[in-house]
Amino acid sequence: MAVYTEVSDDELARFLSGYALGSLLSFKGIAEGVENTNYLVHTTGGTFILTLYEKRVAVEDLPFFLGLMEHLSARGVTCPLPVRDANGRMLNELAGRSAALITFLEGVWPKRPKVRHCLELGKALALMHNAGQDFPIRRENALGLSGWRPLFDRFAPRAEDICAGLHDLITAELGVLEAAWPKDLPQGVIHADLFPDNVFFVDDRISGLIDFYFACNDALAYDLAVCLNAWCFDANSVFEPQKGDALLKGYDSVRPLGAREREAMPILARGAAMRFLLTRSYDWLNTPKDALVARKDPADYVRRLKFHQSVGSIADYAKQLTS
Amino acid sequence: MAVYTEVSDDELARFLSGYALGSLLSFKGIAEGVENTNYLVHTTGGTFILTLYEKRVAVEDLPFFLGLMEHLSARGVTCPLPVRDANGRMLNELAGRSAALITFLEGVWPKRPKVRHCLELGKALALMHNAGQDFPIRRENALGLSGWRPLFDRFAPRAEDICAGLHDLITAELGVLEAAWPKDLPQGVIHADLFPDNVFFVDDRISGLIDFYFACNDALAYDLAVCLNAWCFDANSVFEPQKGDALLKGYDSVRPLGAREREAMPILARGAAMRFLLTRSYDWLNTPKDALVARKDPADYVRRLKFHQSVGSIADYAKQLTS
Repeated sequence: MAVYTEVSDDELARFLSGYALGSLLSFKGIAEGVENTNYLVHTTGGTFILTLYEKRVAVEDLPFFLGLMEHLSARGVTCPLPVRDANGRMLNELAGRSAALITFLEGVWPKRPKVRHCLELGKALALMHNAGQDFPIRRENALGLSGWRPLFDRFAPRAEDICAGLHDLITAELGVLEAAWPKDLPQGVIHADLFPDNVFFVDDRISGLIDFYFACNDALAYDLAVCLNAWCFDANSVFEPQKGDALLKGYDSVRPLGAREREAMPILARGAAMRFLLTRSYDWLNTPKDALVARKDPADYVRRLKFHQSVGSIADYAKQLTS
Repeated sequence: MAVYTEVSDDELARFLSGYALGSLLSFKGIAEGVENTNYLVHTTGGTFILTLYEKRVAVEDLPFFLGLMEHLSARGVTCPLPVRDANGRMLNELAGRSAALITFLEGVWPKRPKVRHCLELGKALALMHNAGQDFPIRRENALGLSGWRPLFDRFAPRAEDICAGLHDLITAELGVLEAAWPKDLPQGVIHADLFPDNVFFVDDRISGLIDFYFACNDALAYDLAVCLNAWCFDANSVFEPQKGDALLKGYDSVRPLGAREREAMPILARGAAMRFLLTRSYDWLNTPKDALVARKDPADYVRRLKFHQSVGSIADYAKQLTS
């Protein structure tokens, strides 16, 4: 949510001269993306997002992220397309950082998603999963099951500072997840962070899926479980059945869920809640209270997790589906 | 340099419905302006800057600032034009803040201004001064001569924490300025903060003067003295005569400086250096070291002030001019 690296007009003009995008008209640092510095760049050739990759992004992962966006774009997924320079490269250097230009997508993300947004999201997610099937590069999910316990260990002694009972709740839940986690679900490329602020709409139609910097290989249905958590609870973290219904129905209409995926949905949803509970808890303890980056309350995911623990089957998320 | 107030898609769409600008396509929080929250807004009717006025701006001053931009635009000055809503209002409410939409201007600001930029700037400043002559609203310069000593009093006990000798330097200089400050110079509306980041260029021509939130009534030549400080020193705070020359020549070619203005230039330049030395010193002591807002080093203005103290006449800034 900040411009970490300043770029000057001369540096940027030099950088752009390597691309066939015309001359620079304007650029503005934008408050988007937690990890990187982003500029909205306007040239005589169009409008683009310039991303400078900051420390927290592993440079060796960039060919996966950029290659994936190019792969998905070529298959009709509405996501940013990395622009290749005159030498065919998607990645260059600017102001001491790895940097890429991607196409700008119109659209606004819904602060309070409605049922119709969830339906569209479900379809778009399934289309993305289908389009990613033949993407040749692989990337492990660093924030998947095997990453959760090590992450918890980094803040476990201070977990009670966040809320009473959190330490025991996470400890018990990790035990359940490690024992019951499904290993045999259909795999593929998942977005892994498809929150409302990463989905743009124009007139209720999806105009863009953005921010693929958590994308990785994992169970496809887990991505849907992330969206259940991110889109289908109200501001008080109460589950909204109509939204769950729309999300799952939309997904299932494009890529029908298999029997094992349906059966696994409650445990996948618990895992997804755990993943965000862990990262939010860690960030909560490690972000200064007065930082300009807003801290997100981990309690939202305690409430989601407890809801998922109460769920009997996928029918509790979407009444028309049975396991 | 931050988005202090978040605006949702629904709130913004409602706000825009009061203007005849078509429907919302996208909006991005931009890292521009120290005091306010700014969004770059794209609608089917064009591109605009949405400004939400934060606490540090006095709401009663907004008719002056917005009215001035409209006045100058109408007289051919390339500055943002506030957009009036269907009821003719330039100012409305959004997310609990006073908010205005202004037109977006292409252009990039020069990180390291060159001589040709200073020449263009001088002309544009003089055009702005001429265009402002019949602007009917008045606003005192809160950061003019009478404001400097009260501002110094707020941090004087800690001045030595910034650099050794600063307390005595400011004390002595305030005495000189208060005794010698010229009272009879031509007055008018000045920008008062026309640093390079407030001046946009496309192909070396000025495409926009922005950020009028320090504008006020004061001596016109003082505005030029601010620009001398802001544009005509190198990165080590060494004066660059060719740039001073170009700035003053450009200005004088459009609005010839009078005898008293030429004579006063060295003391005006000292005053302008003092104004930025004081605000930077205050901010230096009151901004946390780890804040995302970059602190600007007051020492740059100690060096500028010392240079101006050594100046004999306007000819030391621009060799073709004499007092």
